[in-house]
Amino acid sequence: MNSFGSLFRVELFGESHGPAVGVVVDGVPAGTALDFDRIAFEMRRRAPGRSDYTTPRREADETEILSGVKDGIATGAPIACVVRNIDTRSQDYPELLRPGHSDLSALLKYGEHTDRRGGGHFSGRVTAGLVFAGAIAKQILRARGTVIYGRIRSVAGDTDGIDLTRNGAVRGNGQGAALIETLRLISEKPFPAADEWEERFKKTIAAAKDARDSVGGVVEVICFGVPAGLGEPFFGSLESRAAQMIFSVPAVKGVEFGRGFEIAKLRGSEANDPLAAEDGATVSRTNNNGGILGGIANGMPVIVRAAVKPTSSIGVPQETVDPDTKAAATLELGGRHDPCIAPRAVPVIEGGLAIALLDLLFEGGLV
Amino acid sequence: MNSFGSLFRVELFGESHGPAVGVVVDGVPAGTALDFDRIAFEMRRRAPGRSDYTTPRREADETEILSGVKDGIATGAPIACVVRNIDTRSQDYPELLRPGHSDLSALLKYGEHTDRRGGGHFSGRVTAGLVFAGAIAKQILRARGTVIYGRIRSVAGDTDGIDLTRNGAVRGNGQGAALIETLRLISEKPFPAADEWEERFKKTIAAAKDARDSVGGVVEVICFGVPAGLGEPFFGSLESRAAQMIFSVPAVKGVEFGRGFEIAKLRGSEANDPLAAEDGATVSRTNNNGGILGGIANGMPVIVRAAVKPTSSIGVPQETVDPDTKAAATLELGGRHDPCIAPRAVPVIEGGLAIALLDLLFEGGLV
Amino acid sequence: MNSFGSLFRVELFGESHGPAVGVVVDGVPAGTALDFDRIAFEMRRRAPGRSDYTTPRREADETEILSGVKDGIATGAPIACVVRNIDTRSQDYPELLRPGHSDLSALLKYGEHTDRRGGGHFSGRVTAGLVFAGAIAKQILRARGTVIYGRIRSVAGDTDGIDLTRNGAVRGNGQGAALIETLRLISEKPFPAADEWEERFKKTIAAAKDARDSVGGVVEVICFGVPAGLGEPFFGSLESRAAQMIFSVPAVKGVEFGRGFEIAKLRGSEANDPLAAEDGATVSRTNNNGGILGGIANGMPVIVRAAVKPTSSIGVPQETVDPDTKAAATLELGGRHDPCIAPRAVPVIEGGLAIALLDLLFEGGLV
Amino acid sequence: MNSFGSLFRVELFGESHGPAVGVVVDGVPAGTALDFDRIAFEMRRRAPGRSDYTTPRREADETEILSGVKDGIATGAPIACVVRNIDTRSQDYPELLRPGHSDLSALLKYGEHTDRRGGGHFSGRVTAGLVFAGAIAKQILRARGTVIYGRIRSVAGDTDGIDLTRNGAVRGNGQGAALIETLRLISEKPFPAADEWEERFKKTIAAAKDARDSVGGVVEVICFGVPAGLGEPFFGSLESRAAQMIFSVPAVKGVEFGRGFEIAKLRGSEANDPLAAEDGATVSRTNNNGGILGGIANGMPVIVRAAVKPTSSIGVPQETVDPDTKAAATLELGGRHDPCIAPRAVPVIEGGLAIALLDLLFEGGLV
Repeated sequence: MNSFGSLFRVELFGESHGPAVGVVVDGVPAGTALDFDRIAFEMRRRAPGRSDYTTPRREADETEILSGVKDGIATGAPIACVVRNIDTRSQDYPELLRPGHSDLSALLKYGEHTDRRGGGHFSGRVTAGLVFAGAIAKQILRARGTVIYGRIRSVAGDTDGIDLTRNGAVRGNGQGAALIETLRLISEKPFPAADEWEERFKKTIAAAKDARDSVGGVVEVICFGVPAGLGEPFFGSLESRAAQMIFSVPAVKGVEFGRGFEIAKLRGSEANDPLAAEDGATVSRTNNNGGILGGIANGMPVIVRAAVKPTSSIGVPQETVDPDTKAAATLELGGRHDPCIAPRAVPVIEGGLAIALLDLLFEGGLV
Repeated sequence: MNSFGSLFRVELFGESHGPAVGVVVDGVPAGTALDFDRIAFEMRRRAPGRSDYTTPRREADETEILSGVKDGIATGAPIACVVRNIDTRSQDYPELLRPGHSDLSALLKYGEHTDRRGGGHFSGRVTAGLVFAGAIAKQILRARGTVIYGRIRSVAGDTDGIDLTRNGAVRGNGQGAALIETLRLISEKPFPAADEWEERFKKTIAAAKDARDSVGGVVEVICFGVPAGLGEPFFGSLESRAAQMIFSVPAVKGVEFGRGFEIAKLRGSEANDPLAAEDGATVSRTNNNGGILGGIANGMPVIVRAAVKPTSSIGVPQETVDPDTKAAATLELGGRHDPCIAPRAVPVIEGGLAIALLDLLFEGGLV
Repeated sequence: MNSFGSLFRVELFGESHGPAVGVVVDGVPAGTALDFDRIAFEMRRRAPGRSDYTTPRREADETEILSGVKDGIATGAPIACVVRNIDTRSQDYPELLRPGHSDLSALLKYGEHTDRRGGGHFSGRVTAGLVFAGAIAKQILRARGTVIYGRIRSVAGDTDGIDLTRNGAVRGNGQGAALIETLRLISEKPFPAADEWEERFKKTIAAAKDARDSVGGVVEVICFGVPAGLGEPFFGSLESRAAQMIFSVPAVKGVEFGRGFEIAKLRGSEANDPLAAEDGATVSRTNNNGGILGGIANGMPVIVRAAVKPTSSIGVPQETVDPDTKAAATLELGGRHDPCIAPRAVPVIEGGLAIALLDLLFEGGLV
Repeated sequence: MNSFGSLFRVELFGESHGPAVGVVVDGVPAGTALDFDRIAFEMRRRAPGRSDYTTPRREADETEILSGVKDGIATGAPIACVVRNIDTRSQDYPELLRPGHSDLSALLKYGEHTDRRGGGHFSGRVTAGLVFAGAIAKQILRARGTVIYGRIRSVAGDTDGIDLTRNGAVRGNGQGAALIETLRLISEKPFPAADEWEERFKKTIAAAKDARDSVGGVVEVICFGVPAGLGEPFFGSLESRAAQMIFSVPAVKGVEFGRGFEIAKLRGSEANDPLAAEDGATVSRTNNNGGILGGIANGMPVIVRAAVKPTSSIGVPQETVDPDTKAAATLELGGRHDPCIAPRAVPVIEGGLAIALLDLLFEGGLV
């Protein structure tokens, strides 16, 4: 179903080419002053049409609030938010099944009445609601000292050199503080990549675009100030909940924490993060476990990465099938597409993670 | 919290060094004949003490059924299963915090009254309940034509050569059928690895053990016969639910589907699985997406991999802290440990995946 | 929180004097043709301003569908429905706490930022979303042979003479069929009471209105064609789920099934419904248990009653307190109020019950 | 399903004539010292065989704790509790369907494999788990100032004279304090009824027993010290959650709060509880709403009543059906039965209410 969370809950709705997408956010504490300028900024981070590296579909992604807010302050009641669809061109969408898309799955699940235009309810556009809810979650978390910064870690296999499991970021003090600020600035860039890699990443994307093709990438998000003890055993573990959330973002095919799949190549003596006392707290010298042990936050930064597959919509001719006749066919997609979805996925994954963290924060009574 | 699922639900309980571990399984259809020999076989696959490559702790892991079964047949009421702890040696466990373990997290979350002996409720031993519930789920799935086979895909970075995203396994017919049988046999081996890699993997593990160290690995599970349309949008996606489940297994730090993180290195024209018609069904020629598009099963085999970190318990001296005095200390663990947890993780991840699939099957009304 | 159900889910939002009220309905099967005229009819049954016996606030309660429907047919995605608030007069609402209302509770729970205008999110107006979702649920149920008819059973202690636990309605055949049709017609009346009692009930209400006072009543709903076996053990019992739903309707202070509180006055030999075989089915000769035994539907009609308290808003002077100064005060409410809420509660309770039944139907796989 | 609650969760299992009944309790805060003598006392309150007014089945109802407790203190992990069945005599149970019981429902729902012996999973015996979990919940609540006292309010229509909506109990100070103590003492009696009514109630029960029949009754529970603001909107209302819980107790056919069904006979000017300031708090002079407005606790005592039907098992000959042949038959039950279930229902409903309150307390962050 389309809801996530127990005490901080989101319920998504909408289709790419219907009247609107939106979200109901339940559990915002009464009295929370909402920074709507900041929310609009977050919405713009995800919105299409902002650069050569995203789809030219123009959507302002303006939010209309239907409930739960009075004089800019949360009342404690559910906040319903609607984002109207404006620039829809359904004629761009073919009858043929688009490889790599949900078209076939949706048809098999829902039958002929599914709304396949632009991916319908499976469209990345529906994540606008996650960004809205995530923007609120981030504000609440920030007020409690938890911040969340994402960036494009790699494009088409080219990875930036920032390894957050083992440098000053681990504890975020001293030189780490400067790094945190750097990460914040990166995350807020129109193309959220480290300066030294930005042009390389863009060139790779532009080359794919020129070939009417697309490329994949990896998004990395780091959370500083996650309260130690956050997370529940087993199915409520921080990793379980974060992964459930992040895998709901279209195009994500892998999620890992800390060193992730790399840790499976190590010995225990390399993988275990040595413990030390510092200012009365027990800290680790490295952060191979990404701030999570036994599924529970240990006070170190939480590090998560998501593999984002190349945009499925490409102009390159593809083998496919006509769903009605079952005849083989070749698909050459026109329309407007992101040559790489990773840049716009950054605020979505940040927001989703914020939602998962805040829900666990409330669930654990860590308030 | 310790429950998973909506219509096929499991609730885990128990600690490594308490009286017992166990599980309550709710949602087993009335009239399901349970194959207790098969359940016992699955329990043995996870049980410790069976080879040089697992901990010598001796536990028969015999199950006592307290409810929900009459004359070997499920009554429709919840099935409570208890596995007694027998061979506990709490004195083996140190007062010092063990790096890489949940010790610090649990202490920060629950305070001094947490049961840290052997990892307490965070122990891998609690996954015995997942194997029990998973064994039931597998039986129900098998009767519906869905089978689940896991194996050790890699140890310490050495990966077997079986790429299931692009060979005959994709559609499981013709030569694929023989491969499926091979995968079944591998999964049921005491050391569930492909024959050609078994000795190499074992040597790597033995070398780590000799060095009082441990190694990580990757577990891969493939599901044949997953009904197309299985999975719900967004947070109920097959990937979201499977990942929530698999990240609840201790030591897992990454989960990926199909090509996973590799797909982020590709172009769309390489990543998209071309579609074709075959015997009236729409199938894909490759399976880079691991049988899941838009979060929904498309009828191809579902492929999932989990990164299992090296066992945190090692004999190599480690830097740590005394939790009471905060003094720096060196920890040299004795006790009994698995030099590599991947072999025993195979049935746990298989079982967990079976639970997640069956729950989605019921939720989607695909019965 | 504001959601109900697992497989047929509703999420309510909105406030009496905010921009809108609404609901997200998730779980409507793809391909369900929605009868929007019928939905509009149900909305009008609850809408204010339709007679002398309801508040003169004028609200058309027109629904705007934002998602989940294409060409009048459900796509399988969540259906978001918005009902705009038009005729709001916030100045009618006093600063003083209104006895019998949620004003004090809401203030104690949410603090000064709660939206108290017209009861805010606690307003009966929010139940418009239940009626919308309930109208959809009823259509789906009707197609499966389950129908739900409510009526005003009593006003101010004056009770109609229709005892459905022991006449022809029990099995709904023969003379029962005519009774079922009568009950349908009653439920669809603007004032849904049995013809013989309508004028008496109206006189009682009018007398209270003339005295600037209000009266309470009892709503009874009967469901024919509820599949035997519907309901889950314990917390998922038909009675548990229905009561959870019905107690969410503002002003309901009691819920009972079958003979309800009367059954507690009987002996077992009077209360037990004798069983008999009829056309191969096992049926009961009476229906003291209201079609539910052990929390599970037994195939007899399901009978439920709800006690609806007198409207809390009255013109009669009342003792109260100024929430800021804590000074004693006398409140004389102006504004527009229903002298009796029971008539408008009928479609809400019907709709709520339909939601609960459909959710259990899906949960039990009875489709 | 068999679980209740989000942050304080219970999962019931077991059958009347299987090996055991039990419960898993999740969400007990780490560090909670459990008073096992008190738990045993609560178990005895519900246990059978203690007087002439309950079934002579002898069950010590001793609890075995399998997890979640170390040195008598909760560790934060789930607490699994098992109560073995000892004195089972399955031969007492007939093949014929017992009117008033779940026999028919269970057969229709689960088919021939349901365990009907003694009602199986639908047996009142399964509520032992609720009493255990409720005993823990009560201890946690008591430490926070919330106490819960139940009693038999009426038997066979004969009602005691204690009206808690309008005497000193409303605010529990002054003379009210003495009343609270009286209510505590009543609740702990072997036959929990007010002294003045005890003999009358017993005589009525004895007369029914002599006639091989049974009688119904009403249980009333009052909670003092419920934090104002407890409860969530709509489906999470205090009334919704409490009713969901209480209707899960076998034999309950009605639930009401405050004046309950009586309030539907009143005018608003009689039903509204006048507000007054007292020691800086806003209180009500009467408690017709049973401490709940808008579904949220207002700080007054919470009053709930449950209608308990006469025990379905009676010796009087009854019309029934043979489930196999569908032939009409006459049933004369032997076996051991409670002539009135109300006395043993008191601790169950108290415990259930404690569970619901504590879960809402955690959910609302009122800790």
